[in-house]
Amino acid sequence: MSTLGPTPAHTPQLRKDDGAPVHPGTLYLVPNTLDLGLAAAPLDTVLPAAVIQVAARLGHWAAEDAKTARAFLKRVDALVPLTLPLQQIAMAELPRPRKGSGEVVPAAAWHALLAPALAGHDLGLISEAGLPAIADPGAALVEAAHAAGVPVQPLVGPSALMLALAASGLEGQSFAFVGYLPQEPAARVARLRELEALSRRQRQTQLMIETPYRNEALLQAMLDALASDTRLSVSAGLTTAAAFTRSALVATWRTQPSALPPRVPAVFALLAR
Amino acid sequence: MSTLGPTPAHTPQLRKDDGAPVHPGTLYLVPNTLDLGLAAAPLDTVLPAAVIQVAARLGHWAAEDAKTARAFLKRVDALVPLTLPLQQIAMAELPRPRKGSGEVVPAAAWHALLAPALAGHDLGLISEAGLPAIADPGAALVEAAHAAGVPVQPLVGPSALMLALAASGLEGQSFAFVGYLPQEPAARVARLRELEALSRRQRQTQLMIETPYRNEALLQAMLDALASDTRLSVSAGLTTAAAFTRSALVATWRTQPSALPPRVPAVFALLAR
Repeated sequence: MSTLGPTPAHTPQLRKDDGAPVHPGTLYLVPNTLDLGLAAAPLDTVLPAAVIQVAARLGHWAAEDAKTARAFLKRVDALVPLTLPLQQIAMAELPRPRKGSGEVVPAAAWHALLAPALAGHDLGLISEAGLPAIADPGAALVEAAHAAGVPVQPLVGPSALMLALAASGLEGQSFAFVGYLPQEPAARVARLRELEALSRRQRQTQLMIETPYRNEALLQAMLDALASDTRLSVSAGLTTAAAFTRSALVATWRTQPSALPPRVPAVFALLAR
Repeated sequence: MSTLGPTPAHTPQLRKDDGAPVHPGTLYLVPNTLDLGLAAAPLDTVLPAAVIQVAARLGHWAAEDAKTARAFLKRVDALVPLTLPLQQIAMAELPRPRKGSGEVVPAAAWHALLAPALAGHDLGLISEAGLPAIADPGAALVEAAHAAGVPVQPLVGPSALMLALAASGLEGQSFAFVGYLPQEPAARVARLRELEALSRRQRQTQLMIETPYRNEALLQAMLDALASDTRLSVSAGLTTAAAFTRSALVATWRTQPSALPPRVPAVFALLAR
């Protein structure tokens, strides 16, 4: 039995054509900022200096969106000059099935993205906002990395979900993130009541997100569907100048309503009594 | 209806004895490092420069543990000189009911900790590791802040749970953190099977933690109790030099076992098929 350590325990041995062993590069999970579509927040308010340095030296990337990834690298370059000129940095986009097509991206397509790492180069994975592979595509690439013996190193950066949870004051010893709710009104109400019942039974905070232009509709649906003594917290624009969190009983939200700013990403959290 | 913004929407107006309004300070949720009890990782690998600056200027703190909070401030001081000498910084410890006593800390005790903020001073909340109020005490203080109209601002730092989830390659669109499992063997197996069934039904990654010296026992219990085709990921020592993540099928963990390093905090994640 091996002891796990910085090197993966059961790496399939990679070899060059001439049989010489190749040490794979590392897959770095590089966090992006949370200000997509908002006024830019300074990079050093959301990323540790060492993370900015890693981002500046990577020559190979897999990105949810190449354009936003390049915009991120320009912001990095302003603080720590990129090792390679931007146009020489290899940037591959994650495969994406057409929405609602039910297509599944074949494992081979994910494996192909690992080619730079298998050839010995470090590789960055980045999404449009926050930590890659959380509420975001990219987990399949991380899975492929483990299967291929490529070490995976997650880097510290902003997680809207965790910032919102901490700022909510709701139960932080047990929580769940359930993604998006159904859009159809009756199904949405049913799902909200299901989550509220689950929260009550397990004393578990339930976290969810919505497409920003529908934030106001989700808030209204929550105020209509949830019990008066359920606690509801909404965080929006976290890490930006307009960041706020309001956490109160549903009854209070009803008697003292708040409008949510339009087009600002928000996280909703509920805890039932 | 007010629009939510950087200022809380429904702040009870605080007044001094002479009736003049007082603007409350902000409650900053200050992340700590994840290297408690391990070789120290440089602060700038896990905290953004702006967060280190905020920590350096706060004169009032509420801490899970005063000793580790002061040790944190010494590390901050080495990068950004503290505004006040360490011995002049006010440090209050969070009230803690005796373990297993079933005592509940009265709301007034939490409210009392907010005194500096209510008098107009910014206040930091810090735990022994990672983000305060997540898998850690402190949520009740955040709740009290919302009730008292004290603005709450969460700062970016390392979350072992999110780093482990990203590094696992498991489902990141739906996940739950369930804390600790029961220690009694039969109850632990029952809980593991319950979580596995839930994970299968909801396609939801289940995250859990254990007291470090029991990591090996939890891993063994998981290998005994879980299905061969369940995916299991273990991350340990994340953000430190010894950081690693192994993510594989339970069947693979069984045929190619790994020992976990002793006394290193770990996060366990499972996803059933």
